[in-house]
Amino acid sequence: MSKNNTITTPKGFLTAGVHCGVKQSGKPDLGLLVCPTGATAAAVFTTNKITSAAVQVSKKHVKSKTIYAVVVNSGNANACTGRKGVNNAIRMCAVTASLVARGSALGSRVTSHESRKILVASTGIIGHQLPMKNIVTGISKATAGLSDIASAGLNFAHAIMTTDTKCKQAVRKFTIDNYPVTIAGTVKGAGMIAPNMATTLCFITTDAAISKTLLAKALKDAIGNSLNKLTVDGHQSTNDTAIILASGLAGNRPIANENRNYKIFTSALTDLCDDLAKQMALDAEGATRVFKVIVKGAASKADAAKAARAVADYPLVKCAIHGGDPNWGRIICAIGSVGVKLNLKKLSCKIGDITVFRNGQPAKFDPKKAGKIISQPEHTITVDLGAGNYSDFCRGCDLSAEYVRINADYHT
Amino acid sequence: MSKNNTITTPKGFLTAGVHCGVKQSGKPDLGLLVCPTGATAAAVFTTNKITSAAVQVSKKHVKSKTIYAVVVNSGNANACTGRKGVNNAIRMCAVTASLVARGSALGSRVTSHESRKILVASTGIIGHQLPMKNIVTGISKATAGLSDIASAGLNFAHAIMTTDTKCKQAVRKFTIDNYPVTIAGTVKGAGMIAPNMATTLCFITTDAAISKTLLAKALKDAIGNSLNKLTVDGHQSTNDTAIILASGLAGNRPIANENRNYKIFTSALTDLCDDLAKQMALDAEGATRVFKVIVKGAASKADAAKAARAVADYPLVKCAIHGGDPNWGRIICAIGSVGVKLNLKKLSCKIGDITVFRNGQPAKFDPKKAGKIISQPEHTITVDLGAGNYSDFCRGCDLSAEYVRINADYHT
Repeated sequence: MSKNNTITTPKGFLTAGVHCGVKQSGKPDLGLLVCPTGATAAAVFTTNKITSAAVQVSKKHVKSKTIYAVVVNSGNANACTGRKGVNNAIRMCAVTASLVARGSALGSRVTSHESRKILVASTGIIGHQLPMKNIVTGISKATAGLSDIASAGLNFAHAIMTTDTKCKQAVRKFTIDNYPVTIAGTVKGAGMIAPNMATTLCFITTDAAISKTLLAKALKDAIGNSLNKLTVDGHQSTNDTAIILASGLAGNRPIANENRNYKIFTSALTDLCDDLAKQMALDAEGATRVFKVIVKGAASKADAAKAARAVADYPLVKCAIHGGDPNWGRIICAIGSVGVKLNLKKLSCKIGDITVFRNGQPAKFDPKKAGKIISQPEHTITVDLGAGNYSDFCRGCDLSAEYVRINADYHT
Repeated sequence: MSKNNTITTPKGFLTAGVHCGVKQSGKPDLGLLVCPTGATAAAVFTTNKITSAAVQVSKKHVKSKTIYAVVVNSGNANACTGRKGVNNAIRMCAVTASLVARGSALGSRVTSHESRKILVASTGIIGHQLPMKNIVTGISKATAGLSDIASAGLNFAHAIMTTDTKCKQAVRKFTIDNYPVTIAGTVKGAGMIAPNMATTLCFITTDAAISKTLLAKALKDAIGNSLNKLTVDGHQSTNDTAIILASGLAGNRPIANENRNYKIFTSALTDLCDDLAKQMALDAEGATRVFKVIVKGAASKADAAKAARAVADYPLVKCAIHGGDPNWGRIICAIGSVGVKLNLKKLSCKIGDITVFRNGQPAKFDPKKAGKIISQPEHTITVDLGAGNYSDFCRGCDLSAEYVRINADYHT
């Protein structure tokens, strides 16, 4: 049996992934994640003012004390679809509640009318109504195929993909009070990724026992330091959602305050999300390289974050990296354009460990050596603003002709 | 003799454009614009916190009551070059003053020590010191070739180009108090173009007589409603500069207050700048299409401008337009992501004259027809936020694989 690194690894979760006809391609387009015993849940959503119907519905449903399932479709965002779209999202929850309740073999305690105990997520093209007949058939098919084996987890991971070329998964194992605890996650997203929910869709399961309040806090912290520090094209979608379900079956005493156990949990969760963020950057649309921009010497944390993101977002920097060109002038130009406090006499920049700009002056360096660093699949750019003691980072990827091809061809 | 539509058209200006060796390609890289009788001058500069040495120097020099010449090099931005770079920019002015003063045939009244009466501009790669020997030889060569014929104006227009594929020029003729007045301009810029000095470099000449204060006000207004409403890649360079020189030789009574004559002048200047902005968009790096985003129904002018720019800047919109795809979901998504006030129940969007989204709901339309509109070399996208009575616009262009190729290959 192959090692399970899917979201069915933690105790208490069943998944399925099927094709129901939302995607023309015949690829999986409906995923179902069920916690038969009921899970404590938390979620973070896009800050875009235009939110998908699924986001609007899940924002309400996540307030429920217990969540039994998450139903996801890919290929159609159910966004900008008005009242009908919202009704369809609610119906997805109702159908899931009803089918999961009926499947008594699952031992689920949800009743057929408890649609508020189901979360929903959608991703894909904006502005089209969901083909509800297909969706309902899909949920039925998925319910019948629910399982906790690795292949079921993998099917779910595949069912949430759109332009992703690889499915992205991660698992972390640790102990709390000597009880083995597992966190697992899967994420989809290859474009339209920007800080403030750089997630598109992210689903995390854990068997840790933890209070709803602290689960929400841990998720917010973890996403803030991982997925929210990733930019592919500076875009924030209408559908971004990250959901965590905690089955509480690990056996640990429930984490109810910010003690050492909470820290262990949050640290593992952050590490897992960071792993997923890196996988997203590596699979970003058309990307061939990922880079991390570290900004030091900022007058505030906000300045550091703003400057780091400016560099990671800057198309000319992204193009230069694609071309393997250590064109640091574009990095400095990006820094200057976002209005952060900087001390020109101390402003410095490093590509990898090579100083290319020092104290406001060009530094002598070997462009071939720097070009080699910038051509690696992963590298770091460090900028010192010389204006204070704060630092932050942002991850980005290069901009290729392939990005344009993908996004010019992704037709309505 | 061919019709002169260059900046030597207004009375009182001589220009030259030569190759001096800043560019490896052998193309023209040094331009000289002289007003022997002395001109009233005004300028607007980049708001990037990192400014080129030329910008730093010209910001001071433009305060002089009279300006005799503008010296420009392309191929090297003289930015991030420290004290040495500033000294080089000052030296460019000094050498120009000295050579223009010596060329007595020009009848110039500048003395050899009046470098403060010369403006300087640079464009090209950041972070390299200027090859001053070549520059000095170039200024000398240019001074010797100064002329007011059309070809001299054309040479100047070519000498300021970098990745531009076409030289961009415009002329406007009108009368003030029955005196014929001419304004002419040339602009360079094909990438790194964003509002707030979306100009890269812009040089305007006029023979109108106008006070320095009003010339500055007219320029600011004109640029604000034309070049500042253009975005190619949302970037603001370290070197952006727009300069206007007024020789005052048209014979009109000097415009000294905001009267009807001032309005005639400003209107012609704005029209000229708008023409140049359009030419820039059409020649934007890799662009095949330009589009105008009009945002109506905004709660404030600032909201309208922000929303219009968000759409014009959005890579996914730009890619969709490149692909001829009326993917309005991306337009709505862009609008939602920038935090402007909007009324979801009234939010509407038109591609050309086809309504694709009406009162927060997808509208029925023929995607083929809309795709045809979006595939035209020029078209308009209109968004109604339904939140107020303000409107504004922004011009943009599509994003092509060619943009990436150009910017990945523009090596240090």
